[in-house]
Amino acid sequence: MSITAAIVIIGNEILSGRTEDKNTSFIASRLGECGIKLLEVRIIPDDRASIISTLRELSPKYSYIFTTGGIGPTHDDITTEAVAAAFDLKYERHQDAFDILKNFYEERDIEFNKARTKMAYMPSGSTLLGNDITTIPGFTVKNVYVLAGIPHVMHAMFEALIPKLKRGKAVLTKSLDLVAAEGAIAEAFEALQAKYPSIEMGSYPYVTPSGQHATSLVLRGSEEELLSKAYKELQDIISITHD
Amino acid sequence: MSITAAIVIIGNEILSGRTEDKNTSFIASRLGECGIKLLEVRIIPDDRASIISTLRELSPKYSYIFTTGGIGPTHDDITTEAVAAAFDLKYERHQDAFDILKNFYEERDIEFNKARTKMAYMPSGSTLLGNDITTIPGFTVKNVYVLAGIPHVMHAMFEALIPKLKRGKAVLTKSLDLVAAEGAIAEAFEALQAKYPSIEMGSYPYVTPSGQHATSLVLRGSEEELLSKAYKELQDIISITHD
Repeated sequence: MSITAAIVIIGNEILSGRTEDKNTSFIASRLGECGIKLLEVRIIPDDRASIISTLRELSPKYSYIFTTGGIGPTHDDITTEAVAAAFDLKYERHQDAFDILKNFYEERDIEFNKARTKMAYMPSGSTLLGNDITTIPGFTVKNVYVLAGIPHVMHAMFEALIPKLKRGKAVLTKSLDLVAAEGAIAEAFEALQAKYPSIEMGSYPYVTPSGQHATSLVLRGSEEELLSKAYKELQDIISITHD
Repeated sequence: MSITAAIVIIGNEILSGRTEDKNTSFIASRLGECGIKLLEVRIIPDDRASIISTLRELSPKYSYIFTTGGIGPTHDDITTEAVAAAFDLKYERHQDAFDILKNFYEERDIEFNKARTKMAYMPSGSTLLGNDITTIPGFTVKNVYVLAGIPHVMHAMFEALIPKLKRGKAVLTKSLDLVAAEGAIAEAFEALQAKYPSIEMGSYPYVTPSGQHATSLVLRGSEEELLSKAYKELQDIISITHD
């Protein structure tokens, strides 16, 4: 059975164009290394109804859901409460999170005010995701991992949760570039794809620094031997095409 | 009535982490300038069933759908055929697209082969989106704009289609940074949000180059006077807090 995932990026700042989403590519790469197939990403607003309906739709479809954003102390941080509502769970104080936060602020002589206390509230039954760089409590409940939106904080939380994930067979990649438009190789490449249906073959055109059309041909699969065989054939096709 | 939009990024290369999505932030910013509210982004694989179900779900919900990726000549470029299937339209040769492509390749003495001919096939009733830099035919059908995945090509197509869009009232933004953690300002900021419910207020923490906690407070709204009033109050709050 393959292990699958979806990402839900929660943030008005991404939809307004103010902030570029940097979290998808990081999570996508790390999931690939773990053999977990990322099948979908959604970027949605900081809107309670959107978060609830998205989680209710996606949670049963995939092994894991990763959310980023909306877990801080301000009024626009509504992810945590919405996650509780999505699963009809109580939204309540998590004692460990509360103690960690209280200790953190007291040690620094910073007021542990109402807004900061909010970060200790979670869906009933949540497990904290420790991380090395902040006390901001990411957490997991059901099959959902609720992470910070700030990339370096999210990275630390993600690295900490990776050992908890079931892994699939890692996907291996082989790729090859040629300085030619993809239209020149399309038919031969399609024939190769037909011969190796279990290998995912993609063609990605680009322009070289000197302005020529070029193409990256990418082969992805989890069976190393088969991948190498297909790759060898691709090399042969390219050399013939370039004769 | 507000004008709304969703983006559908189609590409295995984004989901595998190979390529970082650069198209969302560009389209999001341009839509904001046009007063078009971007409410959702989906990143999905080059998979026919996923494209069809996503378009069938989103097309009735939003004024405009923008897709990027999957309109080239190779076998993994399946967006166009899937768009036709999503709307039960015939997938047929578009004569203008065909003539433009044929002319382009003949002038350069490049074979107009079967793969390249594929780019002239579109859903019945499609309108071409001209652009200044390629002959790759982006197109529009129903309320869907089908664009290239390569950022600079997508940009050219998008600039060409902008005059066709209905516009809403442009969203204005005012923002203010303070060198303080967002938890310090959260309660006052929430009270301000409650006073101005029609203005969207977001708090975005970051770390300064010297390692201090800082926060950007962002106010967004389409009524200039009201926005200025709320912003003035925010400035007052900040100066009091910093006393």
